[in-house]
Amino acid sequence: MSEIRKTALAAKAAQRALSQATEEEKNRALYMISDAIEDSREKILSANAEDVRAARESGMSESLIDRLSLNEKRIHDMAQGVREVAELDDPTGKILEEIRRPNGLLIKKVSCPIGVIGIIYEARPNVTAEAASLTLKSGNAVVLRGSASALKSNIALTEVMRDALNKSSISPDVIALVRDVSHEGAKELMTMNDALDLLIPRGGAGLINRVVKESTVPVIRTGVGNCHVYIDSTADKNTAIELTVNSKTGRPSTCNAAETLLISKDYPDITGVLSALTNAGVTLHGCSKTCEIYPDALPATEEDYEKEYLCLEMCVKIVSGIDEAIEHISRYGTGHTELIITSSDENAERFMNEVDAASVNFNASTRFTDGGQFGFGAEMGISTQKLHARGPIGLKELTIYKYKVYGSGQVRK
Amino acid sequence: MSEIRKTALAAKAAQRALSQATEEEKNRALYMISDAIEDSREKILSANAEDVRAARESGMSESLIDRLSLNEKRIHDMAQGVREVAELDDPTGKILEEIRRPNGLLIKKVSCPIGVIGIIYEARPNVTAEAASLTLKSGNAVVLRGSASALKSNIALTEVMRDALNKSSISPDVIALVRDVSHEGAKELMTMNDALDLLIPRGGAGLINRVVKESTVPVIRTGVGNCHVYIDSTADKNTAIELTVNSKTGRPSTCNAAETLLISKDYPDITGVLSALTNAGVTLHGCSKTCEIYPDALPATEEDYEKEYLCLEMCVKIVSGIDEAIEHISRYGTGHTELIITSSDENAERFMNEVDAASVNFNASTRFTDGGQFGFGAEMGISTQKLHARGPIGLKELTIYKYKVYGSGQVRK
Repeated sequence: MSEIRKTALAAKAAQRALSQATEEEKNRALYMISDAIEDSREKILSANAEDVRAARESGMSESLIDRLSLNEKRIHDMAQGVREVAELDDPTGKILEEIRRPNGLLIKKVSCPIGVIGIIYEARPNVTAEAASLTLKSGNAVVLRGSASALKSNIALTEVMRDALNKSSISPDVIALVRDVSHEGAKELMTMNDALDLLIPRGGAGLINRVVKESTVPVIRTGVGNCHVYIDSTADKNTAIELTVNSKTGRPSTCNAAETLLISKDYPDITGVLSALTNAGVTLHGCSKTCEIYPDALPATEEDYEKEYLCLEMCVKIVSGIDEAIEHISRYGTGHTELIITSSDENAERFMNEVDAASVNFNASTRFTDGGQFGFGAEMGISTQKLHARGPIGLKELTIYKYKVYGSGQVRK
Repeated sequence: MSEIRKTALAAKAAQRALSQATEEEKNRALYMISDAIEDSREKILSANAEDVRAARESGMSESLIDRLSLNEKRIHDMAQGVREVAELDDPTGKILEEIRRPNGLLIKKVSCPIGVIGIIYEARPNVTAEAASLTLKSGNAVVLRGSASALKSNIALTEVMRDALNKSSISPDVIALVRDVSHEGAKELMTMNDALDLLIPRGGAGLINRVVKESTVPVIRTGVGNCHVYIDSTADKNTAIELTVNSKTGRPSTCNAAETLLISKDYPDITGVLSALTNAGVTLHGCSKTCEIYPDALPATEEDYEKEYLCLEMCVKIVSGIDEAIEHISRYGTGHTELIITSSDENAERFMNEVDAASVNFNASTRFTDGGQFGFGAEMGISTQKLHARGPIGLKELTIYKYKVYGSGQVRK
């Protein structure tokens, strides 16, 4: 039996006991993990330093090295994050519905953990603690498969967390790290349907597409955000500028950043918005009408409309109105977050009803699509598929339900 | 562009309009479909007769021919089924949650259709009308891909339904039939992620496993039920006999039929239950202890415990108590329905909490796991996976949600 299979089956066995743990037991374990992370910062930092050194030698870009690197503050934040998960409400054991049938059967629909969740992720080692704490609190075991470049950091982190669990009532096997980071190992994990109930990829589009394509285990597709801002003819001028600039430049590398601006031809201050974007350092790729009235814009190509820039670049298209805006989004959107800026409640409702996305916003920045901003606490990513969960995947989205059917001898005729 | 791709993209375009239709418009369309099915019974029966003739010539078994065959009563039931779906509550547009954030944002979580749902199914032509009506009522488009043996019946049925829609306000393209029933066609459908949001296979284990394995579109796995009955030491004798016999023999070919009986060694009337099963015509495959005390039982093999018999055969294992029963179910169960028969509320709760299945029953037949019996009305199958929906897939389970975020110019700092 391969190391990966052994690890996953041990996680599965340990999850059965975890699913019966009380909220108090789970919280105690999370506080112990949090303390252990703070107390073991030297061990973690020294493992991370080795990863960073190797990454630098292999020529990794500075922005990726920044994502890989830990320091005292990041370790403190990680530990703090685990404590915050402990303080969130336990999502399991909730009675979601009670049905009394004419034959006397009482059916309770009760929330419960999903089971064993695999996470395939790229360089950021803080995902390791984040994923482990969210899954533990929701009663799930986790099988972590990070990237080769972060392997030493991930080993140190999971050792610290598992050692902490060893002193708790919860088996350390609920936090499992796959040390075989080969492509074959990933493939094995993606097809281990008898051990894994769910796979969540976290990383770039290449990783996510590979997992969606190769996995036979159910997947939640996350984090591809080609988000649009539509400025309607009646939009307030200041609101239009503030929301567009915040949606684009607040943090351009995130999936909830806006990538294309659609403006109604009847909006009276098109150049005002475009100048504000230019002043904020954004390079604009415009349709032919945009380029006519705003010569600083470069001509946009078909690929520009499809692109998730993730940097200070943006497409601009002048449209005939809300219909063309909805049409454009339906064609190019990825179902993440779409914003209308308008003074018309009617157009806002129409946009929010007809646009098919996880979050449809009316006069509120696209940047709000985030577990913390929604009030869910930490999250495991933003789902852009339409099965199970859409938008932020917080604790509740890491649960499913079972039906408890209470009878007194009923048979079906 | 292939026929399948054209069909699916037309369904996708039509679904956008359907998602905005009122409940009244959808119901009117469903009643028109129902009437059209009754009125077109001759067309449907004559197409079905051709399928049945070809199936008989190809040597199809009588039981499969029975599943393929339509008659006046089955057509009437089909039309009646469509009317019943019209009478169910519209599951879309429900406000599931309202969140008011400190910054003034109002976030409404609202139920909405999933989008385009593909159904890959085997011979029974009544699935065609059932799937089309459930998806239409929930605002989804459907792409139907039935088997080659039922192609003429399915063409006739979808023509009748689409003609009815032509007279309604809803585009006929929301009910699409794939006429290319080749394996390559199925593969194309299973990987059309830009047009399909969900695939539901309905049929035998072979079909379901193929779809789970090959599909890159999200799948709901349905209908594999290796269900267990556990008779605890304190079970009431009559209840034990009635529930076990009903669970096994009520309708042995369905996925909610029981396949293995686990009995506590301390249950005082083991042979009473086994005789009742024998008298009901059930062939028993027993563990060594069972064979000792009940010589009519054949010896059970490892494969017997894994098997979904779907006929009048059953495994019997005498266990030391509830722990061994839970252990056995955890190893062999498929997460469908598991039953404990006991007089102990404590053991019942323990069983229902620790056994990981869609439905965990206490003194109620396994046969109740069914959309109609749960009070959901018609259903699209029983999900045995743990993502999105577990148990009966009724109208509500064919929806997802979106977040409508109402702001007044909020930006994220």
